[in-house]
Order: sequence, then structure tokens, then C-alpha cells
Amino acid sequence: MSKSIFYHAGCSVCVSAEQDLLSLINPSEVEIVNFAEDTSRLPDAEKAGVQSVPALVTPNGNVLHINFGASLADVKG
Amino acid sequence: MSKSIFYHAGCSVCVSAEQDLLSLINPSEVEIVNFAEDTSRLPDAEKAGVQSVPALVTPNGNVLHINFGASLADVKG
Repeated sequence: MSKSIFYHAGCSVCVSAEQDLLSLINPSEVEIVNFAEDTSRLPDAEKAGVQSVPALVTPNGNVLHINFGASLADVKG
Repeated sequence: MSKSIFYHAGCSVCVSAEQDLLSLINPSEVEIVNFAEDTSRLPDAEKAGVQSVPALVTPNGNVLHINFGASLADVKG
């Protein structure tokens, strides 16, 4: 596995995390999988150890589960 | 704020997440703050909305809380 895989489910929190990560990581090095559009990838994600979304599976197989915390300003806004 | 800031506390889980992230993100675009070495940065992190470590604060101020999920192979190994 040479690419990272970013799994999400299309919710606003996921999309926000996706945009943030893609601004930091070279987009050509990340595959985006949206479970809301393609449930056929769920078994792969489970096999990789993904327990929640959004999550980033790195090229070496580690799973980073990401909890996006909105800023207070965002909540108030 | 033009750089991302990665906050962690020196635990093995944090360091593993750090290495993973730094392999994906250009290291020159990320500042690493280790609370185990420098507690003076705690107020900054709290102000940014960091609630747990490891966490990545992105240039636009969003906070990504990262729960590193070890693979079963790692747990067994």
C-alpha cells in the first residue's frame, strides 16, 4: 500500500476534516473513500482497523482516527 | 498562523502518530510541540481548542484530535 486512504461518510464534520487534511497532504498521495457514496469499501476499512470516521489509514497501515473539534467561534457562528 | 502545530505529550502512541503525520505532511509546514518537554505551550493549545493529544491544529485554526488505533498485529507483537 503506497497511498494513504482517507475514509469518511459525507457528513459536514468529515468534509471539513477532509478539506483540512488535503490542504496539508499532497492530494495525489491520498485516496478519498466516502462511505455515503460507496459502501463496498467498508470491509476493506474494517480490515484495516478503522473504527470510526473520519479516519486516515497511512501507507504503513496505521489508522489515525480523527475527531474534528469545531472552534467555539464556529459553534457560535 | 501559517503553520500547522502538532501537539503531543511524548507517549509512544503520540510519537507513532507524529512519525506517521510527518511522513505525509511537509515537516517544514508543521511545528511540533511536546508537552512533556515544554508545558509553557499548554495555554496556547487550550486557546486553540485542543482537548486531547495527539492533536493537529491546522493553519485555518481547525483542531483535529487524533486517536491512534494500533493494529491488532501491533498489539499482539
